[in-house]
Amino acid sequence: MSLAPSDPSLLTASAAFKQLQRRELTAQQLLGACLERIRDQEPHVLAWRHIDAERALEHARALDAGPIRGPLHGLPLGVKDLFDTRDFPTGYGSPIYQHHRPVTDAAAVALCRAAGAIVLGKTVTTEFATFTPGPTRNPHNPGHTPGGSSSGSAAAVAANMVPLALGTQTAASIVRPAAYCGIVGFKPGFGLISRAGVKSLSESLDTVGGFGRSVADVALLTSVMANAAAWRDLPEDSKPRIGICRTPHWDSASAAAQQAFEATVQRLARAGAFVVDVSLPDAVAALTEVHDEMMCAEAFKALADERLHHPEWLSERLRAMLERGAAVTYEQTVSHRAHVASARHQLGRGFAGYDLLMTPSACGEADAGLTATGDPLFSRIWSLLGLPSVALPTGFGPQGLPLGIQLIGPSMSDTATLGFAHWIEQRLQG
Amino acid sequence: MSLAPSDPSLLTASAAFKQLQRRELTAQQLLGACLERIRDQEPHVLAWRHIDAERALEHARALDAGPIRGPLHGLPLGVKDLFDTRDFPTGYGSPIYQHHRPVTDAAAVALCRAAGAIVLGKTVTTEFATFTPGPTRNPHNPGHTPGGSSSGSAAAVAANMVPLALGTQTAASIVRPAAYCGIVGFKPGFGLISRAGVKSLSESLDTVGGFGRSVADVALLTSVMANAAAWRDLPEDSKPRIGICRTPHWDSASAAAQQAFEATVQRLARAGAFVVDVSLPDAVAALTEVHDEMMCAEAFKALADERLHHPEWLSERLRAMLERGAAVTYEQTVSHRAHVASARHQLGRGFAGYDLLMTPSACGEADAGLTATGDPLFSRIWSLLGLPSVALPTGFGPQGLPLGIQLIGPSMSDTATLGFAHWIEQRLQG
Repeated sequence: MSLAPSDPSLLTASAAFKQLQRRELTAQQLLGACLERIRDQEPHVLAWRHIDAERALEHARALDAGPIRGPLHGLPLGVKDLFDTRDFPTGYGSPIYQHHRPVTDAAAVALCRAAGAIVLGKTVTTEFATFTPGPTRNPHNPGHTPGGSSSGSAAAVAANMVPLALGTQTAASIVRPAAYCGIVGFKPGFGLISRAGVKSLSESLDTVGGFGRSVADVALLTSVMANAAAWRDLPEDSKPRIGICRTPHWDSASAAAQQAFEATVQRLARAGAFVVDVSLPDAVAALTEVHDEMMCAEAFKALADERLHHPEWLSERLRAMLERGAAVTYEQTVSHRAHVASARHQLGRGFAGYDLLMTPSACGEADAGLTATGDPLFSRIWSLLGLPSVALPTGFGPQGLPLGIQLIGPSMSDTATLGFAHWIEQRLQG
Repeated sequence: MSLAPSDPSLLTASAAFKQLQRRELTAQQLLGACLERIRDQEPHVLAWRHIDAERALEHARALDAGPIRGPLHGLPLGVKDLFDTRDFPTGYGSPIYQHHRPVTDAAAVALCRAAGAIVLGKTVTTEFATFTPGPTRNPHNPGHTPGGSSSGSAAAVAANMVPLALGTQTAASIVRPAAYCGIVGFKPGFGLISRAGVKSLSESLDTVGGFGRSVADVALLTSVMANAAAWRDLPEDSKPRIGICRTPHWDSASAAAQQAFEATVQRLARAGAFVVDVSLPDAVAALTEVHDEMMCAEAFKALADERLHHPEWLSERLRAMLERGAAVTYEQTVSHRAHVASARHQLGRGFAGYDLLMTPSACGEADAGLTATGDPLFSRIWSLLGLPSVALPTGFGPQGLPLGIQLIGPSMSDTATLGFAHWIEQRLQG
């Protein structure tokens, strides 16, 4: 007897894969259900820049007719339009690249395809993954932002248009949209997934990750890109010691976000997790500002061609960011790096006392309006330190929009972090 | 009275720039001299994949008619064909990309152009910057390899076809060709120059740098890409404490390389440098092997599209490398990273006792034959640690081919490393 919902678009990727593997569900059925959902939801959500249903159906038919291709066999996938794709235009969220057609798939996309994923289309990104939004709306309320920069990927997964989608994070571009859209986002530790073929913004920070509707799903998706099979074996009972970290930005969290966070702490403590209040060392707390300077300085270099040849096509917000970056000297960069090294060392010692840090995943519910994507405040530090981070939804706020937590593991502990996040997810669903 | 050679192609970039700035030399004159040199030498050297003399002359005329554009004003530049260019085909050394035309300049190229450099053409790279060579020959002896992977860039600068050229290093791809061709190569510290638009091989290792015929020249070139004006102010009297490091690979150095190295140590000691013999901690010495595994593992991911769509167009050598990389597990990656962190810590403590490490820059003179590019043995450790490294020529070996030294500075000490290298260069020219 199966408890799976009768509409396959509602299945998690992990559940769908099991059915696909047993041939109880065909790739065509799953894709058909997703396309149905898109027909219904896309006019309100605007998550996609390009969809190629015909090509996807052809791929699904070929998969149904052949052997199981890999751990993503038959799973429809949304790809942030910051990743190059050989059979879709790729615009990086900028009018400069409106008609751009790369000849090669980004490495992450190629690896997902090789594992059997069906690339259904490209999802909306902000301008070069910065702060100027595309048209996407929050699936929970079209008057609110879905977050950014991986706006379309988060919204598409939240609206059940696809079970999985690719994103990138430089400041908070996976965690924040996952939080605002009420789904699971995973930003793996730094350096594990190739960024080849992903438009570069800030090389010390840019990280490829994924969205899904469960921890197991994001583990499945990212394991393929990281060539890390270990991430797929989530332990059933991995009870964490959680460092409860209200961060120096606690006052920027809404009352609702603070209450939801405290309630989550209580729930997890009652469920048996060891929880301990943690203050960040000053050097760590000060990283929010360092992050911003490093991001701007690197973006100034990375977007040199666009800045020189098409300044008129860059948003004012981006031009201001690049100007800030131009002014960062080599000496400041050296000082930033030293600061990061020292903060990393101090935080590493702290991690002896707990397995995970837990913070709010954003300042609160998604902001009203579509002209900005919300504040990356709660994720800048962890992006800069390159630590594995999971965004988990915990419920809804007074405006009916999602709230959630961010779980951060120590360096090179992606496997354990996913395991602990899975444990927490189970307890929060109870 | 000027002591400059009457043929401007023989000028260093720094000397040429001074004349250009004073309008004693025009960009057209300098370019004309380089083109003359190319007509003469290129049939024997085969350094270039594409040259566009017409476009370059047009650019030179425009520069001569306008204001001084920046620190590279009027300097002809060779660009390794691993960097995307908007007005040249870009082949990455692979038949897969034989007819590829990017729409955007790599960030490093755009920054050089913005500083007034004239991109004369694209120089030969090995296959995706790995070990399968292109046609380039050593300018000192066409029967010998120029080294790789930045083969054409090093050969073009050595043959005076251009004063400056861009390269990248993942194992030894700047230091080794600089050594084999008898010029100066600089691999900056990791993370300072954007790799946006450079074909990715191994993201933990790939580093953009440059070639010139003096330390001041490579400092000039790389300072523009790093937005590090400080690198251009080389102190006149920066006497170093040098850690003489024969490395665990000393026995792989030829007798001639060993003798030349020891003679250089004596010369520098006589010139007043403090020299001290240094042995590498075991953890550092063992990094050569770690480097190889990390490079292969990351290349397996980065070249996923090419591997999946065009396996028949990859060389057997590259396919074998990617197979090795596929087998590296996440657990091994975690262990490698821990090893690197520990080695970095141990080496950092060592650097308290000296300003620079000095090693041979390669195993010896350039190997005979053109089917391989020589052994990267002497640079793998420093590529993996991301430390600033300068290749300096010291003379010629018994086969009439160049020999040299490699100077390695501590993390984030590019400015000081260039200064010390400049001091050493002056003493070796005496």
